[in-house]
Amino acid sequence: MQSLLGKPVVDALTAELEVLLADFVRASGRRPRLAVILVGDDPASHLYVTNKRKSADRLGIDHELHLFAAKATPVEVRTKVDELNQRLDVDGILIQRPLPAGFNLQEVSCWIEPSKDVDGFHPELVGKLALGIPALTPCTPTGIMALLEHYKIPVAGKLCCVVGRSPIVGKPLAAMLLNANATVVQCHRGTAQLAEITSRADVLFVAAGVARLVGREHVRPGAVVIDVGIHKLVDGSLTGDVRADELRDHAAALTPVPGGVGPLTIFMLMSNVVQAAHARLDTTRRSSVRKA
Amino acid sequence: MQSLLGKPVVDALTAELEVLLADFVRASGRRPRLAVILVGDDPASHLYVTNKRKSADRLGIDHELHLFAAKATPVEVRTKVDELNQRLDVDGILIQRPLPAGFNLQEVSCWIEPSKDVDGFHPELVGKLALGIPALTPCTPTGIMALLEHYKIPVAGKLCCVVGRSPIVGKPLAAMLLNANATVVQCHRGTAQLAEITSRADVLFVAAGVARLVGREHVRPGAVVIDVGIHKLVDGSLTGDVRADELRDHAAALTPVPGGVGPLTIFMLMSNVVQAAHARLDTTRRSSVRKA
Repeated sequence: MQSLLGKPVVDALTAELEVLLADFVRASGRRPRLAVILVGDDPASHLYVTNKRKSADRLGIDHELHLFAAKATPVEVRTKVDELNQRLDVDGILIQRPLPAGFNLQEVSCWIEPSKDVDGFHPELVGKLALGIPALTPCTPTGIMALLEHYKIPVAGKLCCVVGRSPIVGKPLAAMLLNANATVVQCHRGTAQLAEITSRADVLFVAAGVARLVGREHVRPGAVVIDVGIHKLVDGSLTGDVRADELRDHAAALTPVPGGVGPLTIFMLMSNVVQAAHARLDTTRRSSVRKA
Repeated sequence: MQSLLGKPVVDALTAELEVLLADFVRASGRRPRLAVILVGDDPASHLYVTNKRKSADRLGIDHELHLFAAKATPVEVRTKVDELNQRLDVDGILIQRPLPAGFNLQEVSCWIEPSKDVDGFHPELVGKLALGIPALTPCTPTGIMALLEHYKIPVAGKLCCVVGRSPIVGKPLAAMLLNANATVVQCHRGTAQLAEITSRADVLFVAAGVARLVGREHVRPGAVVIDVGIHKLVDGSLTGDVRADELRDHAAALTPVPGGVGPLTIFMLMSNVVQAAHARLDTTRRSSVRKA
């Protein structure tokens, strides 16, 4: 079984991104800038944000962090987002999830200007993805598509099964696979006879958020399996949504956890920031032309 | 095999819609108004528009038609749409498809204000549907969901297969089925071994736009089949995407063509106009409260 590592993909794509980034710096006289909003003190969220900032530092993307206490109101956070939406030097904005209970996630997903929404969660971006109109797209599924391309795993005409329907992974991933001409099955907690359905797939994507949900009985011999989950077990070790040990002599390929999909997610966030910055540059150029 | 007629569904829903409509007229002092844009002289499009206007007349919805010659430019049509977007007395706008070759459909889908887009094609509406956020939704799949509800055909936990991935039917229908907790398979012209996949479905939706594409070999015995296609054969008779004659002693139920899904599509357009009008009323009420 081939282990589909994320790092070689990130390494290959970083070179391209650096060219695009240098091009932006040359044209604009500044570096792209990401603004991160973090509410509350969930340790995992703070760790994610730290990793995102480190990744930005490595690439040469400016960033700023706006911290709110767990008791901050939606109005306070919204006011900050409005301010960041207006600021000309901010290219990308993200609101780290999870948010405290008082926040309505569907409302929050409409706060960030679509052109700056580097998580790709705004309904307009979701719609554009479904319709195949180019726009910012969610980082994890975008990373998965890049990983498939890097390892030359075709999906066109293949039966692709996505387990999970979150707005962050499952739904946008299904849309991307459909746009890439796959036949797509979307399963979820309401799916009866899960193994019967998943075991027909040529490529199986597991983004259920349930540790070790999927094992040998769910996987067709020779299938490719993409494991999007990451969970810390009581002994401190990490596992995915897939029982990797059961697939060793069974699947053709599997993304390891950690080290598979994970590294691509942060990379695609950086890629989105640079793309958002570039798109704004093009808009500025166009308005200057109009004014001239 | 049960024949799933559209008319009884429309009749049952019309009573509800009339209450909503009367409520709007009482609150606003006017009737809801639909503006239709028709470009070129495709006879089928003119017939569709006539049917929509007749349906509006029957219910008591005002309407106006803006005709453009086939050689009209996108800028001319766009200017009219902008004007209709601004007009306070226009609740719903639709641009009849197909449009002449010079029009970019993806761009056109962004012209109508989401709050007035009674076809539900705007990317923001597409995204809201995918995310389960209440908003205007495309008429044909909305009608299909109403038909399933009327005939008490459950989809939650069922394997539902959609053949077709158009932005008008296939994609929004898959989103609605997923929101209703179905396990959803989406097939299309790139699907290998179509019959093998469709013949597992509990409910099969055929919106491929190919006359008599689906027959006995594609359908599980006892399955429910929804035929969204309508085609005129050389002898003048109408047929769907399904070979209805092959399913008589095979499927549990089938929508006839004509008389199945068709009547629901126009009804749902009217329902969208009334809903759009109501939503604007609520907005007006809210702004008055704010001003007070």
